[in-house]
Amino acid sequence: MPDGVASAVRYGLKSPGKRLRPLLLLSAYRAAGGAGDAIPLACAPEVIHSYSLMHDDLPCMDDDDMRRGRPTVHKVYGSKVAILAGVAMIPLGVRVASSAARELGVPEKVGVAIIETLLEAAGSSGMIGGQERDLAGEGVALVLAEREAIHAAKTGALIAGSLRMGALAAGADDKEVAALQRYGRDIGLAFQIMDDVLDVTSTTSALGKTTGRDAVLGKSTYPALLGVDGARRRAEALVDDGLGSLRERGLLTQELSEVANFIVARTS
Amino acid sequence: MPDGVASAVRYGLKSPGKRLRPLLLLSAYRAAGGAGDAIPLACAPEVIHSYSLMHDDLPCMDDDDMRRGRPTVHKVYGSKVAILAGVAMIPLGVRVASSAARELGVPEKVGVAIIETLLEAAGSSGMIGGQERDLAGEGVALVLAEREAIHAAKTGALIAGSLRMGALAAGADDKEVAALQRYGRDIGLAFQIMDDVLDVTSTTSALGKTTGRDAVLGKSTYPALLGVDGARRRAEALVDDGLGSLRERGLLTQELSEVANFIVARTS
Repeated sequence: MPDGVASAVRYGLKSPGKRLRPLLLLSAYRAAGGAGDAIPLACAPEVIHSYSLMHDDLPCMDDDDMRRGRPTVHKVYGSKVAILAGVAMIPLGVRVASSAARELGVPEKVGVAIIETLLEAAGSSGMIGGQERDLAGEGVALVLAEREAIHAAKTGALIAGSLRMGALAAGADDKEVAALQRYGRDIGLAFQIMDDVLDVTSTTSALGKTTGRDAVLGKSTYPALLGVDGARRRAEALVDDGLGSLRERGLLTQELSEVANFIVARTS
Repeated sequence: MPDGVASAVRYGLKSPGKRLRPLLLLSAYRAAGGAGDAIPLACAPEVIHSYSLMHDDLPCMDDDDMRRGRPTVHKVYGSKVAILAGVAMIPLGVRVASSAARELGVPEKVGVAIIETLLEAAGSSGMIGGQERDLAGEGVALVLAEREAIHAAKTGALIAGSLRMGALAAGADDKEVAALQRYGRDIGLAFQIMDDVLDVTSTTSALGKTTGRDAVLGKSTYPALLGVDGARRRAEALVDDGLGSLRERGLLTQELSEVANFIVARTS
Protein backbone atom coordinates (compact mmCIF):
# COMPACT_ATOMS: atom_id res chain seq x y z
CA MET A 1 0.00 0.00 0.00
CA PRO A 2 1.42 3.42 -0.86
CA ASP A 3 2.56 5.51 2.07
CA GLY A 4 -0.12 8.18 2.54
CA VAL A 5 -3.11 5.86 2.41
CA ALA A 6 -1.34 3.07 4.33
CA SER A 7 -0.29 5.48 7.02
CA ALA A 8 -3.81 6.96 7.27
CA VAL A 9 -5.28 3.46 7.59
CA ARG A 10 -2.86 2.70 10.44
CA TYR A 11 -3.57 6.02 12.12
CA GLY A 12 -7.30 5.30 11.96
CA LEU A 13 -6.95 1.72 13.21
CA LYS A 14 -4.59 2.64 16.05
CA SER A 15 -7.00 5.19 17.44
CA PRO A 16 -7.47 4.45 21.16
CA GLY A 17 -11.06 3.21 20.79
CA LYS A 18 -13.05 0.96 23.06
CA ARG A 19 -12.90 -1.99 20.61
CA LEU A 20 -16.53 -2.66 21.46
CA ARG A 21 -17.24 -4.63 18.27
CA PRO A 22 -14.29 -7.03 18.65
CA LEU A 23 -15.22 -7.54 22.31
CA LEU A 24 -18.81 -8.32 21.35
CA LEU A 25 -17.78 -10.71 18.59
CA LEU A 26 -15.44 -12.59 20.95
CA SER A 27 -18.04 -12.66 23.74
CA ALA A 28 -20.70 -14.04 21.38
CA TYR A 29 -18.24 -16.61 20.07
CA ARG A 30 -17.43 -17.81 23.57
CA ALA A 31 -21.04 -17.67 24.78
CA ALA A 32 -22.04 -19.93 21.88
CA GLY A 33 -19.34 -22.44 22.79
CA GLY A 34 -16.55 -21.41 20.41
CA ALA A 35 -13.16 -22.66 21.61
CA GLY A 36 -10.75 -21.37 18.94
CA ASP A 37 -8.80 -18.11 18.69
CA ALA A 38 -11.35 -15.70 17.21
CA ILE A 39 -9.26 -12.56 17.75
CA PRO A 40 -8.31 -12.21 14.05
CA LEU A 41 -11.98 -12.49 13.07
CA ALA A 42 -12.86 -9.96 15.78
CA CYS A 43 -10.64 -7.39 14.06
CA ALA A 44 -12.79 -7.37 10.90
CA PRO A 45 -15.77 -5.33 12.19
CA GLU A 46 -13.35 -2.89 13.87
CA VAL A 47 -11.73 -2.22 10.47
CA ILE A 48 -15.17 -1.45 9.01
CA HIS A 49 -16.07 0.66 12.05
CA SER A 50 -12.82 2.64 11.74
CA TYR A 51 -13.51 3.39 8.07
CA SER A 52 -16.96 4.70 8.98
CA LEU A 53 -15.53 7.07 11.60
CA MET A 54 -12.99 8.33 9.08
CA HIS A 55 -15.70 9.16 6.53
CA ASP A 56 -18.24 10.46 9.09
CA ASP A 57 -15.69 13.02 10.27
CA LEU A 58 -15.03 14.41 6.75
CA PRO A 59 -15.69 18.11 6.18
CA CYS A 60 -18.55 17.30 3.77
CA MET A 61 -20.12 14.94 6.34
CA ASP A 62 -20.12 15.73 10.10
CA ASP A 63 -17.02 17.95 9.82
CA ASP A 64 -15.36 16.86 13.07
CA ASP A 65 -11.80 17.87 13.99
CA MET A 66 -11.32 15.61 17.02
CA ARG A 67 -11.93 11.90 17.57
CA ARG A 68 -10.87 9.88 20.61
CA GLY A 69 -8.67 12.71 21.81
CA ARG A 70 -6.70 13.06 18.56
CA PRO A 71 -7.08 15.10 15.38
CA THR A 72 -9.32 13.28 12.90
CA VAL A 73 -7.77 11.53 9.88
CA HIS A 74 -8.60 14.26 7.36
CA LYS A 75 -7.08 16.87 9.69
CA VAL A 76 -3.78 14.97 9.53
CA TYR A 77 -3.82 13.55 5.99
CA GLY A 78 -6.30 15.72 4.09
CA SER A 79 -9.71 14.75 2.72
CA LYS A 80 -8.43 13.06 -0.42
CA VAL A 81 -6.32 10.52 1.48
CA ALA A 82 -9.04 10.13 4.16
CA ILE A 83 -11.57 9.17 1.48
CA LEU A 84 -9.19 6.71 -0.21
CA ALA A 85 -8.06 5.20 3.10
CA GLY A 86 -11.66 4.75 4.25
CA VAL A 87 -12.63 3.08 1.00
CA ALA A 88 -9.57 0.80 1.13
CA MET A 89 -10.68 -0.40 4.57
CA ILE A 90 -13.90 -1.95 3.25
CA PRO A 91 -12.21 -4.66 1.14
CA LEU A 92 -9.53 -4.88 3.84
CA GLY A 93 -12.10 -5.65 6.55
CA VAL A 94 -13.84 -8.23 4.40
CA ARG A 95 -10.53 -9.90 3.53
CA VAL A 96 -9.61 -10.01 7.22
CA ALA A 97 -12.92 -11.74 7.94
CA SER A 98 -12.49 -14.15 5.05
CA SER A 99 -8.99 -15.28 5.96
CA ALA A 100 -9.75 -15.35 9.70
CA ALA A 101 -12.78 -17.58 9.13
CA ARG A 102 -10.59 -19.93 7.10
CA GLU A 103 -7.88 -19.95 9.80
CA LEU A 104 -10.53 -20.70 12.41
CA GLY A 105 -11.53 -23.74 10.37
CA VAL A 106 -15.21 -22.84 9.99
CA PRO A 107 -17.00 -24.58 7.09
CA GLU A 108 -16.81 -22.58 3.84
CA LYS A 109 -20.58 -22.08 3.82
CA VAL A 110 -20.37 -20.46 7.27
CA GLY A 111 -17.41 -18.37 6.08
CA VAL A 112 -19.55 -17.00 3.26
CA ALA A 113 -22.37 -16.23 5.76
CA ILE A 114 -19.86 -14.37 7.96
CA ILE A 115 -18.63 -12.30 5.01
CA GLU A 116 -22.19 -11.53 3.93
CA THR A 117 -23.09 -10.41 7.46
CA LEU A 118 -20.22 -7.94 7.42
CA LEU A 119 -21.09 -6.69 3.92
CA GLU A 120 -24.72 -6.20 4.85
CA ALA A 121 -23.78 -4.18 7.94
CA ALA A 122 -21.43 -2.00 5.85
CA GLY A 123 -23.85 -1.54 2.97
CA SER A 124 -26.80 0.54 1.94
CA SER A 125 -29.27 -1.12 4.31
CA GLY A 126 -26.76 -0.72 7.17
CA MET A 127 -24.18 1.95 7.88
CA ILE A 128 -24.48 3.88 4.61
CA GLY A 129 -28.25 4.10 4.74
CA GLY A 130 -28.13 5.19 8.37
CA GLN A 131 -25.49 7.82 7.69
CA GLU A 132 -27.46 9.27 4.79
CA ARG A 133 -30.65 9.50 6.84
CA ASP A 134 -28.70 10.94 9.77
CA LEU A 135 -27.27 13.69 7.57
CA ALA A 136 -30.71 14.33 6.05
CA GLY A 137 -32.15 14.60 9.57
CA GLU A 138 -29.87 17.46 10.64
CA GLY A 139 -31.95 20.48 11.48
CA VAL A 140 -35.16 18.44 11.09
CA ALA A 141 -37.31 17.46 14.09
CA LEU A 142 -37.51 13.66 14.06
CA VAL A 143 -39.84 11.48 16.06
CA LEU A 144 -38.35 8.79 18.27
CA ALA A 145 -39.15 5.92 15.89
CA GLU A 146 -37.26 7.57 13.03
CA ARG A 147 -34.30 8.39 15.28
CA GLU A 148 -34.16 4.75 16.39
CA ALA A 149 -34.40 3.47 12.80
CA ILE A 150 -31.45 5.67 11.83
CA HIS A 151 -29.35 4.34 14.67
CA ALA A 152 -30.39 0.74 14.10
CA ALA A 153 -28.89 1.12 10.61
CA LYS A 154 -25.98 3.47 11.28
CA THR A 155 -24.40 1.77 14.30
CA GLY A 156 -26.75 -1.07 15.27
CA ALA A 157 -26.22 -3.08 12.08
CA LEU A 158 -22.48 -3.50 12.64
CA ILE A 159 -22.84 -4.14 16.39
CA ALA A 160 -25.54 -6.78 15.84
CA GLY A 161 -23.49 -8.04 12.88
CA SER A 162 -20.41 -8.49 15.11
CA LEU A 163 -22.45 -10.67 17.48
CA ARG A 164 -23.88 -12.62 14.55
CA MET A 165 -20.39 -13.20 13.12
CA GLY A 166 -19.15 -14.54 16.46
CA ALA A 167 -22.21 -16.76 16.86
CA LEU A 168 -21.90 -18.12 13.30
CA ALA A 169 -18.19 -18.84 13.76
CA ALA A 170 -18.97 -20.84 16.92
CA GLY A 171 -21.54 -22.92 15.05
CA ALA A 172 -24.55 -21.51 16.94
CA ASP A 173 -28.04 -22.60 15.82
CA ASP A 174 -30.57 -20.14 14.34
CA LYS A 175 -32.28 -19.37 17.65
CA GLU A 176 -28.99 -18.70 19.39
CA VAL A 177 -27.87 -16.46 16.52
CA ALA A 178 -31.20 -14.58 16.73
CA ALA A 179 -30.90 -14.10 20.52
CA LEU A 180 -27.36 -12.73 20.23
CA GLN A 181 -28.41 -10.42 17.39
CA ARG A 182 -31.35 -9.13 19.43
CA TYR A 183 -29.01 -8.41 22.35
CA GLY A 184 -26.80 -6.63 19.79
CA ARG A 185 -29.61 -4.47 18.45
CA ASP A 186 -30.66 -3.58 21.98
CA ILE A 187 -27.28 -2.64 23.34
CA GLY A 188 -26.31 -0.94 20.06
CA LEU A 189 -29.24 1.38 20.43
CA ALA A 190 -28.53 1.84 24.14
CA PHE A 191 -24.95 2.75 23.21
CA GLN A 192 -26.15 5.38 20.76
CA ILE A 193 -28.61 6.84 23.26
CA MET A 194 -25.78 7.14 25.79
CA ASP A 195 -23.62 8.76 23.10
CA ASP A 196 -26.26 11.46 22.74
CA VAL A 197 -26.51 11.79 26.53
CA LEU A 198 -22.72 12.13 26.85
CA ASP A 199 -22.69 14.73 24.07
CA VAL A 200 -24.83 16.87 26.39
CA THR A 201 -23.45 15.95 29.81
CA SER A 202 -19.72 15.30 29.25
CA THR A 203 -16.81 17.56 28.37
CA THR A 204 -14.62 17.51 25.26
CA SER A 205 -11.58 16.40 27.29
CA ALA A 206 -13.39 13.54 29.07
CA LEU A 207 -15.00 12.28 25.87
CA GLY A 208 -11.99 12.77 23.58
CA LYS A 209 -14.14 14.34 20.88
CA THR A 210 -15.92 17.64 20.47
CA THR A 211 -19.06 17.74 22.64
CA GLY A 212 -22.18 19.79 21.98
CA ARG A 213 -21.91 19.04 18.23
CA ASP A 214 -25.41 17.59 18.01
CA ALA A 215 -26.97 20.82 19.18
CA VAL A 216 -24.83 22.80 16.71
CA LEU A 217 -25.90 20.48 13.88
CA GLY A 218 -29.53 20.70 14.97
CA LYS A 219 -29.89 16.93 15.39
CA SER A 220 -32.97 15.48 17.11
CA THR A 221 -31.09 13.67 19.86
CA TYR A 222 -32.53 11.35 22.51
CA PRO A 223 -32.07 13.90 25.29
CA ALA A 224 -33.91 16.43 23.11
CA LEU A 225 -36.71 13.94 22.52
CA LEU A 226 -36.91 12.30 25.97
CA GLY A 227 -34.90 14.50 28.35
CA VAL A 228 -31.58 13.31 29.81
CA ASP A 229 -33.20 11.12 32.46
CA GLY A 230 -35.77 9.72 30.06
CA ALA A 231 -32.99 8.85 27.61
CA ARG A 232 -31.02 7.06 30.35
CA ARG A 233 -34.10 5.06 31.33
CA ARG A 234 -34.70 4.06 27.69
CA ALA A 235 -31.10 2.82 27.46
CA GLU A 236 -31.48 0.80 30.66
CA ALA A 237 -34.72 -0.78 29.44
CA LEU A 238 -33.02 -1.82 26.19
CA VAL A 239 -30.16 -3.42 28.10
CA ASP A 240 -32.67 -5.35 30.23
CA ASP A 241 -34.42 -6.61 27.11
CA GLY A 242 -31.12 -7.71 25.55
CA LEU A 243 -29.99 -9.54 28.66
CA GLY A 244 -33.41 -11.20 28.91
CA SER A 245 -33.15 -12.52 25.37
CA LEU A 246 -29.77 -14.09 26.18
CA ARG A 247 -30.98 -15.54 29.49
CA GLU A 248 -33.83 -17.30 27.71
CA ARG A 249 -31.34 -19.21 25.53
CA GLY A 250 -28.79 -19.90 28.25
CA LEU A 251 -26.31 -17.52 26.60
CA LEU A 252 -26.02 -14.91 29.35
CA THR A 253 -22.33 -15.02 30.20
CA GLN A 254 -20.65 -12.70 32.65
CA GLU A 255 -18.82 -10.84 29.89
CA LEU A 256 -21.96 -10.17 27.82
CA SER A 257 -23.63 -8.91 31.00
CA GLU A 258 -20.66 -6.69 31.85
CA VAL A 259 -20.48 -5.17 28.36
CA ALA A 260 -24.16 -4.28 28.48
CA ASN A 261 -23.86 -2.69 31.90
CA PHE A 262 -20.72 -0.81 30.87
CA ILE A 263 -22.67 0.78 28.03
CA VAL A 264 -25.22 2.44 30.29
CA ALA A 265 -22.70 3.29 33.02
CA ARG A 266 -19.91 4.68 30.83
CA THR A 267 -18.76 8.27 31.13
CA SER A 268 -16.71 8.50 27.91
CA MET B 1 -31.76 2.15 0.30
CA PRO B 2 -32.71 5.78 1.00
CA ASP B 3 -33.61 7.83 -2.03
CA GLY B 4 -30.59 10.08 -2.66
CA VAL B 5 -27.94 7.39 -2.39
CA ALA B 6 -30.06 4.76 -4.15
CA SER B 7 -30.80 7.14 -6.99
CA ALA B 8 -27.11 8.10 -7.30
CA VAL B 9 -26.11 4.42 -7.42
CA ARG B 10 -28.63 3.82 -10.22
CA TYR B 11 -27.47 6.93 -12.08
CA GLY B 12 -23.88 5.73 -11.87
CA LEU B 13 -24.71 2.16 -12.91
CA LYS B 14 -26.93 3.21 -15.81
CA SER B 15 -24.22 5.33 -17.33
CA PRO B 16 -23.84 4.33 -21.00
CA GLY B 17 -20.47 2.65 -20.52
CA LYS B 18 -18.78 0.04 -22.65
CA ARG B 19 -19.33 -2.73 -20.04
CA LEU B 20 -15.83 -3.93 -20.83
CA ARG B 21 -15.38 -5.80 -17.53
CA PRO B 22 -18.63 -7.80 -17.78
CA LEU B 23 -17.77 -8.62 -21.40
CA LEU B 24 -14.32 -9.83 -20.38
CA LEU B 25 -15.65 -11.91 -17.49
CA LEU B 26 -18.22 -13.58 -19.75
CA SER B 27 -15.66 -14.14 -22.51
CA ALA B 28 -13.22 -15.75 -20.07
CA TYR B 29 -16.01 -17.88 -18.62
CA ARG B 30 -16.97 -19.15 -22.05
CA ALA B 31 -13.37 -19.57 -23.25
CA ALA B 32 -12.69 -21.77 -20.21
CA GLY B 33 -15.70 -23.95 -20.99
CA GLY B 34 -18.32 -22.42 -18.71
CA ALA B 35 -21.86 -23.27 -19.85
CA GLY B 36 -24.06 -21.50 -17.27
CA ASP B 37 -25.54 -18.02 -17.23
CA ALA B 38 -22.70 -15.89 -15.88
CA ILE B 39 -24.34 -12.53 -16.60
CA PRO B 40 -25.25 -11.84 -12.92
CA LEU B 41 -21.64 -12.57 -11.92
CA ALA B 42 -20.43 -10.33 -14.75
CA CYS B 43 -22.27 -7.38 -13.21
CA ALA B 44 -20.14 -7.48 -10.05
CA PRO B 45 -16.92 -5.93 -11.44
CA GLU B 46 -19.00 -3.30 -13.28
CA VAL B 47 -20.50 -2.22 -9.94
CA ILE B 48 -16.99 -1.83 -8.50
CA HIS B 49 -15.81 -0.04 -11.64
CA SER B 50 -18.76 2.38 -11.47
CA TYR B 51 -17.98 3.23 -7.85
CA SER B 52 -14.39 4.02 -8.81
CA LEU B 53 -15.49 6.40 -11.58
CA MET B 54 -17.83 8.14 -9.15
CA HIS B 55 -15.04 8.74 -6.65
CA ASP B 56 -12.34 9.54 -9.26
CA ASP B 57 -14.54 12.35 -10.59
CA LEU B 58 -15.00 14.01 -7.16
CA PRO B 59 -13.84 17.63 -6.81
CA CYS B 60 -11.12 16.58 -4.35
CA MET B 61 -9.87 13.86 -6.76
CA ASP B 62 -9.77 14.45 -10.55
CA ASP B 63 -12.56 17.07 -10.41
CA ASP B 64 -14.36 16.02 -13.60
CA ASP B 65 -17.75 17.44 -14.61
CA MET B 66 -18.51 15.10 -17.51
CA ARG B 67 -18.43 11.31 -17.83
CA ARG B 68 -19.77 9.27 -20.75
CA GLY B 69 -21.56 12.32 -22.12
CA ARG B 70 -23.46 13.12 -18.91
CA PRO B 71 -22.80 15.28 -15.86
CA THR B 72 -20.82 13.30 -13.26
CA VAL B 73 -22.59 11.95 -10.15
CA HIS B 74 -21.40 14.68 -7.79
CA LYS B 75 -22.56 17.36 -10.26
CA VAL B 76 -26.08 15.92 -10.01
CA TYR B 77 -26.22 14.71 -6.38
CA GLY B 78 -23.47 16.63 -4.61
CA SER B 79 -20.20 15.29 -3.18
CA LYS B 80 -21.70 13.97 0.05
CA VAL B 81 -24.12 11.62 -1.72
CA ALA B 82 -21.49 10.73 -4.36
CA ILE B 83 -19.11 9.59 -1.61
CA LEU B 84 -21.79 7.56 0.21
CA ALA B 85 -23.12 6.04 -3.02
CA GLY B 86 -19.61 5.04 -4.12
CA VAL B 87 -18.86 3.45 -0.77
CA ALA B 88 -22.21 1.59 -0.78
CA MET B 89 -21.28 0.07 -4.14
CA ILE B 90 -18.29 -1.84 -2.72
CA PRO B 91 -20.32 -4.15 -0.45
CA LEU B 92 -23.02 -4.18 -3.15
CA GLY B 93 -20.59 -5.42 -5.80
CA VAL B 94 -19.21 -8.11 -3.50
CA ARG B 95 -22.70 -9.24 -2.54
CA VAL B 96 -23.65 -9.44 -6.22
CA ALA B 97 -20.59 -11.65 -6.82
CA SER B 98 -21.34 -13.81 -3.80
CA SER B 99 -24.97 -14.50 -4.67
CA ALA B 100 -24.23 -14.88 -8.39
CA ALA B 101 -21.52 -17.47 -7.68
CA ARG B 102 -24.00 -19.38 -5.52
CA GLU B 103 -26.69 -19.21 -8.23
CA LEU B 104 -24.19 -20.43 -10.78
CA GLY B 105 -23.60 -23.46 -8.56
CA VAL B 106 -19.82 -23.04 -8.23
CA PRO B 107 -18.29 -24.85 -5.22
CA GLU B 108 -18.20 -22.65 -2.09
CA LYS B 109 -14.40 -22.66 -2.09
CA VAL B 110 -14.38 -21.23 -5.63
CA GLY B 111 -17.04 -18.70 -4.57
CA VAL B 112 -14.71 -17.46 -1.83
CA ALA B 113 -11.83 -17.22 -4.34
CA ILE B 114 -14.06 -15.18 -6.67
CA ILE B 115 -15.00 -12.80 -3.84
CA GLU B 116 -11.37 -12.45 -2.79
CA THR B 117 -10.32 -11.67 -6.37
CA LEU B 118 -12.84 -8.83 -6.50
CA LEU B 119 -11.81 -7.52 -3.07
CA GLU B 120 -8.14 -7.56 -4.01
CA ALA B 121 -8.81 -5.62 -7.21
CA ALA B 122 -10.83 -3.03 -5.27
CA GLY B 123 -8.37 -2.73 -2.42
CA SER B 124 -5.17 -1.02 -1.49
CA SER B 125 -2.95 -3.14 -3.75
CA GLY B 126 -5.39 -2.55 -6.62
CA MET B 127 -7.57 0.40 -7.52
CA ILE B 128 -7.03 2.45 -4.37
CA GLY B 129 -3.25 2.16 -4.48
CA GLY B 130 -3.25 3.04 -8.17
CA GLN B 131 -5.51 6.04 -7.66
CA GLU B 132 -3.35 7.37 -4.84
CA ARG B 133 -0.16 7.05 -6.87
CA ASP B 134 -1.91 8.57 -9.89
CA LEU B 135 -2.95 11.62 -7.86
CA ALA B 136 0.53 11.87 -6.35
CA GLY B 137 2.00 11.76 -9.87
CA GLU B 138 0.13 14.83 -11.11
CA GLY B 139 2.59 17.49 -12.07
CA VAL B 140 5.48 15.05 -11.54
CA ALA B 141 7.46 13.62 -14.45
CA LEU B 142 7.16 9.85 -14.22
CA VAL B 143 9.18 7.27 -16.07
CA LEU B 144 7.37 4.68 -18.14
CA ALA B 145 7.76 1.87 -15.59
CA GLU B 146 6.12 3.91 -12.84
CA ARG B 147 3.31 4.99 -15.16
CA GLU B 148 2.68 1.35 -16.07
CA ALA B 149 2.73 0.25 -12.42
CA ILE B 150 0.11 2.87 -11.59
CA HIS B 151 -2.16 1.67 -14.38
CA ALA B 152 -1.62 -2.00 -13.60
CA ALA B 153 -3.04 -1.22 -10.15
CA LYS B 154 -5.61 1.45 -10.98
CA THR B 155 -7.40 -0.19 -13.89
CA GLY B 156 -5.47 -3.37 -14.69
CA ALA B 157 -6.26 -5.12 -11.39
CA LEU B 158 -10.02 -5.05 -11.94
CA ILE B 159 -9.75 -5.94 -15.64
CA ALA B 160 -7.44 -8.88 -14.93
CA GLY B 161 -9.64 -9.70 -11.91
CA SER B 162 -12.73 -9.86 -14.13
CA LEU B 163 -11.02 -12.42 -16.37
CA ARG B 164 -9.87 -14.37 -13.32
CA MET B 165 -13.39 -14.39 -11.88
CA GLY B 166 -14.81 -15.75 -15.14
CA ALA B 167 -12.08 -18.37 -15.40
CA LEU B 168 -12.57 -19.49 -11.77
CA ALA B 169 -16.34 -19.72 -12.20
CA ALA B 170 -15.84 -21.97 -15.23
CA GLY B 171 -13.56 -24.28 -13.23
CA ALA B 172 -10.39 -23.41 -15.19
CA ASP B 173 -7.09 -24.88 -13.98
CA ASP B 174 -4.24 -22.72 -12.62
CA LYS B 175 -2.45 -22.37 -15.97
CA GLU B 176 -5.63 -21.36 -17.76
CA VAL B 177 -6.43 -18.83 -15.04
CA ALA B 178 -2.89 -17.44 -15.33
CA ALA B 179 -3.10 -17.14 -19.14
CA LEU B 180 -6.43 -15.29 -18.95
CA GLN B 181 -5.07 -12.98 -16.24
CA ARG B 182 -2.00 -12.22 -18.34
CA TYR B 183 -4.22 -11.35 -21.29
CA GLY B 184 -6.17 -9.15 -18.87
CA ARG B 185 -3.09 -7.31 -17.62
CA ASP B 186 -1.92 -6.77 -21.20
CA ILE B 187 -5.16 -5.47 -22.63
CA GLY B 188 -5.88 -3.48 -19.45
CA LEU B 189 -2.66 -1.60 -19.93
CA ALA B 190 -3.32 -1.24 -23.67
CA PHE B 191 -6.73 0.18 -22.81
CA GLN B 192 -5.19 2.78 -20.52
CA ILE B 193 -2.56 3.74 -23.08
CA MET B 194 -5.32 4.27 -25.63
CA ASP B 195 -7.25 6.32 -23.05
CA ASP B 196 -4.26 8.65 -22.84
CA VAL B 197 -3.97 8.73 -26.64
CA LEU B 198 -7.68 9.56 -27.01
CA ASP B 199 -7.35 12.31 -24.39
CA VAL B 200 -4.94 13.98 -26.80
CA THR B 201 -6.46 13.07 -30.18
CA SER B 202 -10.23 12.96 -29.58
CA THR B 203 -12.82 15.64 -28.87
CA THR B 204 -15.00 16.06 -25.78
CA SER B 205 -18.17 15.28 -27.77
CA ALA B 206 -16.75 12.09 -29.38
CA LEU B 207 -15.33 10.81 -26.09
CA GLY B 208 -18.23 11.82 -23.85
CA LYS B 209 -15.90 13.23 -21.23
CA THR B 210 -13.71 16.29 -21.00
CA THR B 211 -10.57 15.86 -23.15
CA GLY B 212 -7.21 17.49 -22.59
CA ARG B 213 -7.60 17.01 -18.79
CA ASP B 214 -4.32 15.11 -18.47
CA ALA B 215 -2.32 18.04 -19.81
CA VAL B 216 -4.17 20.44 -17.47
CA LEU B 217 -3.44 18.15 -14.50
CA GLY B 218 0.20 17.81 -15.57
CA LYS B 219 0.06 14.00 -15.78
CA SER B 220 2.92 12.05 -17.38
CA THR B 221 0.82 10.36 -20.04
CA TYR B 222 1.94 7.71 -22.54
CA PRO B 223 1.81 10.14 -25.47
CA ALA B 224 3.98 12.52 -23.42
CA LEU B 225 6.43 9.71 -22.66
CA LEU B 226 6.39 7.85 -26.01
CA GLY B 227 4.70 10.16 -28.51
CA VAL B 228 1.25 9.35 -29.95
CA ASP B 229 2.58 6.82 -32.47
CA GLY B 230 4.94 5.23 -29.94
CA ALA B 231 2.06 4.88 -27.49
CA ARG B 232 -0.13 3.23 -30.14
CA ARG B 233 2.68 0.79 -30.98
CA ARG B 234 3.12 -0.08 -27.28
CA ALA B 235 -0.63 -0.81 -27.00
CA GLU B 236 -0.50 -3.05 -30.09
CA ALA B 237 2.50 -4.98 -28.74
CA LEU B 238 0.66 -5.59 -25.46
CA VAL B 239 -2.39 -6.90 -27.30
CA ASP B 240 -0.15 -9.27 -29.30
CA ASP B 241 1.40 -10.57 -26.08
CA GLY B 242 -2.02 -11.13 -24.49
CA LEU B 243 -3.38 -12.96 -27.52
CA GLY B 244 -0.22 -15.08 -27.64
CA SER B 245 -0.66 -16.15 -24.03
CA LEU B 246 -4.21 -17.30 -24.78
CA ARG B 247 -3.21 -19.09 -27.99
CA GLU B 248 -0.62 -21.10 -26.08
CA ARG B 249 -3.35 -22.56 -23.82
CA GLY B 250 -5.96 -23.03 -26.53
CA LEU B 251 -8.11 -20.25 -25.04
CA LEU B 252 -8.05 -17.79 -27.95
CA THR B 253 -11.72 -17.45 -28.81
CA GLN B 254 -13.06 -15.06 -31.41
CA GLU B 255 -14.63 -12.81 -28.75
CA LEU B 256 -11.43 -12.46 -26.70
CA SER B 257 -9.61 -11.62 -29.93
CA GLU B 258 -12.25 -9.07 -30.94
CA VAL B 259 -12.23 -7.35 -27.54
CA ALA B 260 -8.46 -6.97 -27.69
CA ASN B 261 -8.55 -5.56 -31.19
CA PHE B 262 -11.41 -3.20 -30.30
CA ILE B 263 -9.26 -1.73 -27.54
CA VAL B 264 -6.50 -0.57 -29.86
CA ALA B 265 -8.89 0.46 -32.64
CA ARG B 266 -11.47 2.35 -30.55
CA THR B 267 -12.15 6.04 -31.06
CA SER B 268 -14.14 6.69 -27.87
